[in-house]
Amino acid sequence: MKRIDTLLTPRAVAVVGASPRPGVVGGEIFRNIVHGGYHGAVYPVNPNHDQIEGVKCYPAVTQIPEPVDLAVIAVKRDLVLDVVRDCGAAHVPHLVVITAGFKESGEEGAQLENAMRAEAARFGIDLIGPNCMGIINSTPEVALNASFSRWFPKPGPIAFISQSGSLGETFLEFFDRMGLGVSLFVNLGNRAGLTENDLLAGLADDPRITTILLYLESFADPHELREIAARIGGTKHLLALKAGRTQAGAAAAASHTGALATPDAIVDAFLRQSGIIRVFSIEEALVALRAFSHPRIPRGRRVAILTNAGGAGIIATDACERTGLDVPRFSTATQAKLAEFLPPEASIGNPVDMIATAGADDYARALSVAIAETDAALVIFRPPIVLKDPVDQVAANIVRIATQFPDKPVVACTLSDSEFVAPFTTALTAAGIPVYTMPEDGVAALSVLHQANRALTAAAAVVDQFQPDHARAAAIIDRIRATGRETVSFADGAEILSAYGVPIAPYAYVDDAGFDTFMRDVGFPLAAKLDAPGLMHRFERGAVIIRINNRAGLDRAIAQLQVVAQRERLTNARILVQPMLSGRELIFGMKRDPVFGPVLMFGIGGTLVEALHDVSFGVAPVFPNQAEAMIRAIRAFPLLKAFRGQKAVAIRPLAMLIHRLARLSMAFPAIAEIDINPFIVGEGAQGAVDILMKLIT
Amino acid sequence: MKRIDTLLTPRAVAVVGASPRPGVVGGEIFRNIVHGGYHGAVYPVNPNHDQIEGVKCYPAVTQIPEPVDLAVIAVKRDLVLDVVRDCGAAHVPHLVVITAGFKESGEEGAQLENAMRAEAARFGIDLIGPNCMGIINSTPEVALNASFSRWFPKPGPIAFISQSGSLGETFLEFFDRMGLGVSLFVNLGNRAGLTENDLLAGLADDPRITTILLYLESFADPHELREIAARIGGTKHLLALKAGRTQAGAAAAASHTGALATPDAIVDAFLRQSGIIRVFSIEEALVALRAFSHPRIPRGRRVAILTNAGGAGIIATDACERTGLDVPRFSTATQAKLAEFLPPEASIGNPVDMIATAGADDYARALSVAIAETDAALVIFRPPIVLKDPVDQVAANIVRIATQFPDKPVVACTLSDSEFVAPFTTALTAAGIPVYTMPEDGVAALSVLHQANRALTAAAAVVDQFQPDHARAAAIIDRIRATGRETVSFADGAEILSAYGVPIAPYAYVDDAGFDTFMRDVGFPLAAKLDAPGLMHRFERGAVIIRINNRAGLDRAIAQLQVVAQRERLTNARILVQPMLSGRELIFGMKRDPVFGPVLMFGIGGTLVEALHDVSFGVAPVFPNQAEAMIRAIRAFPLLKAFRGQKAVAIRPLAMLIHRLARLSMAFPAIAEIDINPFIVGEGAQGAVDILMKLIT
Repeated sequence: MKRIDTLLTPRAVAVVGASPRPGVVGGEIFRNIVHGGYHGAVYPVNPNHDQIEGVKCYPAVTQIPEPVDLAVIAVKRDLVLDVVRDCGAAHVPHLVVITAGFKESGEEGAQLENAMRAEAARFGIDLIGPNCMGIINSTPEVALNASFSRWFPKPGPIAFISQSGSLGETFLEFFDRMGLGVSLFVNLGNRAGLTENDLLAGLADDPRITTILLYLESFADPHELREIAARIGGTKHLLALKAGRTQAGAAAAASHTGALATPDAIVDAFLRQSGIIRVFSIEEALVALRAFSHPRIPRGRRVAILTNAGGAGIIATDACERTGLDVPRFSTATQAKLAEFLPPEASIGNPVDMIATAGADDYARALSVAIAETDAALVIFRPPIVLKDPVDQVAANIVRIATQFPDKPVVACTLSDSEFVAPFTTALTAAGIPVYTMPEDGVAALSVLHQANRALTAAAAVVDQFQPDHARAAAIIDRIRATGRETVSFADGAEILSAYGVPIAPYAYVDDAGFDTFMRDVGFPLAAKLDAPGLMHRFERGAVIIRINNRAGLDRAIAQLQVVAQRERLTNARILVQPMLSGRELIFGMKRDPVFGPVLMFGIGGTLVEALHDVSFGVAPVFPNQAEAMIRAIRAFPLLKAFRGQKAVAIRPLAMLIHRLARLSMAFPAIAEIDINPFIVGEGAQGAVDILMKLIT
Repeated sequence: MKRIDTLLTPRAVAVVGASPRPGVVGGEIFRNIVHGGYHGAVYPVNPNHDQIEGVKCYPAVTQIPEPVDLAVIAVKRDLVLDVVRDCGAAHVPHLVVITAGFKESGEEGAQLENAMRAEAARFGIDLIGPNCMGIINSTPEVALNASFSRWFPKPGPIAFISQSGSLGETFLEFFDRMGLGVSLFVNLGNRAGLTENDLLAGLADDPRITTILLYLESFADPHELREIAARIGGTKHLLALKAGRTQAGAAAAASHTGALATPDAIVDAFLRQSGIIRVFSIEEALVALRAFSHPRIPRGRRVAILTNAGGAGIIATDACERTGLDVPRFSTATQAKLAEFLPPEASIGNPVDMIATAGADDYARALSVAIAETDAALVIFRPPIVLKDPVDQVAANIVRIATQFPDKPVVACTLSDSEFVAPFTTALTAAGIPVYTMPEDGVAALSVLHQANRALTAAAAVVDQFQPDHARAAAIIDRIRATGRETVSFADGAEILSAYGVPIAPYAYVDDAGFDTFMRDVGFPLAAKLDAPGLMHRFERGAVIIRINNRAGLDRAIAQLQVVAQRERLTNARILVQPMLSGRELIFGMKRDPVFGPVLMFGIGGTLVEALHDVSFGVAPVFPNQAEAMIRAIRAFPLLKAFRGQKAVAIRPLAMLIHRLARLSMAFPAIAEIDINPFIVGEGAQGAVDILMKLIT
């Protein structure tokens, strides 16, 4: 982990490539620092000028008479290496490289980027960029705009770390426009040096920052991110806008950043497991940040909606249901209290439509009655043409009641951006109540606050007490790897899995010594199959015979499978016998993703998975509660409840199974792939019926 | 259908309840008319004043010396009836009743509303309202703001019909803010008189209106709407924001407007069948209307994305895929053309990331190369800090190329609302190219334009040539109804359905004369079941025996079913025998919705429908192409393709089946419900295996 304190709060900054000419990036940065009111010393560096904007200009960083904490480099690409060496010689600890033309422009640029990284490392210099727009720290005692952004946000509890420069500036513009307090901005650019993880870790102990937004097109190191997020998630809210979500988008992101594309469902699972709230558009990110400027986290999903405009109440109710929030009908007692003062035209069930005549007192009384029964409130106030009370009085009343419920978020909507609502908006915003124009945005704000509640617990690292028999699994894996084989027999796979606590359906090989005992124990009906490493599509190749009802049938099946083994030239095939388990068929799987490592998969067997791709993912480690969330996330989850005469499936044991598969996969990097299909959960008996496991050879 | 021309273009307007006092609704309306520059004559009516704003005031409408086309009524509720009578006496053809306190306020108000409607009818007066905010016609030769809206939109090709007043005014404010040209606005309020259908029909022949937005919480008469939409959909684009989508939202809407709640999936199907484009939020409606100010309708879903900011291109690509648009990779030829002039750092596959150095010529060349290979283009231009060309030159180049492709929409995004982009936005907007700040909105615009392409064909009324045997079905239905029975036997249901061309699986009753012949024809295996009207849950009650493999088995089954019949006291039960068809199990159904009439349902049988509620709907009539869309709309649709050794199911015959079920349901209002579950499609054989039909008694 890198130290970022002097990067973000330098006492002296050099701008290499500063220029008096307009439209030159280094000049824009220098002017932004000077005009932004930076509290430290700033030194322009450019051999062609004596002074810029009245400030003495130095021919090289090494010539600056005082220590420099940060050098911002905006010279031509081919000069960057020399400047980095100068900075090394001058003991500059931090560089922000604005210059483009590196990895993003092809092979030659990539080589130059590597050389620059090596030079910086040689001098122990931390590097931001290259190909970035700079950094901003608007904290009053620093006031540094070391970027070429035209916007400089006011200070506040938000930090913004962006992989993209152009979108970064779009965000800065709207932070400014919305009056959002954003103290820190870092554009990572090509991310040759410091990553989002270094920045997050560096902000861990900064009490002024309570919310961090990441804009990412790829992850520098997802496991490091997860670890840091778990560490700081208790004190800070983390939000991520991850672009390249869809296949085409990922391809575009890959060509933009040279990053590997990962299925978006895995990214989704990963962020949820990390306790990072995902937002899906620039607008949603901005809506969320306004809510997180003074966040109150609701304990549940119940929302009270008050309105003086009926239609907006209906639209807000629709939006709540769409985003998973409840608009519960109020109790009779609450409705009676509302009926005491609201006119007969009002609706009192929730949403509470107080009609256009509602005044400041109505808002106060209705809010205090309604929010008592919910976890949050959305207050819609559109100033009517005939004002009963001044709008700031309505606002004051809402603030007064909201203050009495400090752990319940209150969000307001105005349905207007006009001068009529300005005093209302100003008063509420000043009191930390976010105000949105549209009801859908107000609901989106409540939804994201609700997600923050879930995020607090989602990342919790709970493990089970089960002690796997690591040595047993290791011995089998070593033995197979010694043969150079890639595929694992059923028996070996079953041994490895059961060493990690995965239940296996009863089985025996017909050539086992204990086969007769097994036959006495399990009885009929049975299934018999050929087990040979590398034998795929067993069903299609006649290597599975099911519904064997008696000994004669078993003998016939064995003879038949021997014929198949000969035909398929399977010299080391054995014949495996299992009882026919009946029950729900499940699929558990593991694949290694090049970015995320072991990714666990869960689905319901049969046509559903094949036709609907109805599976869910989890990135290892998958803690039991996260595994349970995975199981509940599939669309077909209702099939696991009591259904058509079958009892409900116990979810916890299945969650432990996923958790243990994840532990196994992390413990043995040699396991490339696991596929348990089907795993049958019957009444009583349950276990893996078929196992496909591949090793990395 | 009502005449609305003089309503919207009156030569003389009376404002009853006009007042010089501020904050009085009638006064606001009068001032809006006067200050809005209305071209006709306006007469304030109020017995307490001699003049208002320097205009002579009349004590009653009957005292006005000239004919009045429209009276706007904003008097106290208890005076409204008298004013309506006055208007009748003065031969005023149109009323807009602003006054509230009618149906929305309870029983007494509802009675008064009925009385008012009766009075208006007696005089042949058309009525808008009550409880509404008025009407607007901003066409230059009219310039009438007969509402208490604080905003008066500039004229243009859009009409807006809103059931809600407060949301209506929100829209008017944003029309104004966005410079959207909206000539007509009507707030329907309680809809006691004219409905959205009357307004739509009245606008049918107005060539100046090309796009109509409806905000609805309920439908006045959906079938009339569908008919009108089919009639005008070829020349005008229809958009609807339907609130009360979710269960809770519908409950809120029902209490707001007293309307019946319908499952939203049915509303969705209905709008699609009617060729009405559905938008889902206020923002989306506004985004769409900007695109429809100068609509170009794309022929397909392929979008080219050009950008000078990589991140925004990725976000736009994600958004395209999310909304069903394609961002196809360009052909090698197109990529080669782009590589001719773009720098090596650029991405040329699509999205085309031209990087920040792209100038006006790059935009022109890239757009002309890229759009040639797609149906539409999204052009993202964020003015970089170092401008190569003035932004208006970039805009001019985009306009020049867009003009060369008049049937392909071009939409632009700026990622900024600042003064730096203003000339760009102004130039493009003037040329009819919509400009959005955020890429997600630009994509939403293209998506809604693409939906307009589908809407053009979706509503087409195609019927099949099949002539049903109406008389045969009628005879059976009459016979059953004569007995007073509600449920229909399998044999009768099969007769009725086959009279309408629905294939029935082979069947015979064991007491049929031809049973032995049937047995010879079909062979084994068979299924046998009890058929008795009113016998439900046959499987659970042991009334179905499947997999009968020989004559002895059939005899046992018959004996067993007779025992069940006795136990269940089914005196009129018969035993039905069918061959065991194997193949895909489907479900077809029909229920009557109180608002929409016969609603057809389709799903795949088995656990999917039960657990996932994976069904789709269509409102009768369901034309064959609409029925095909219904079949393709279920999530499990891939199960009907070639799958696990089964051939693909032919979709057209299933679509015809739905179409004919819809015809049957419309032809016989006595049929309350039809449930064909399962309908089996096998290789060769197919047909309804079980039929449940209920009549209205």
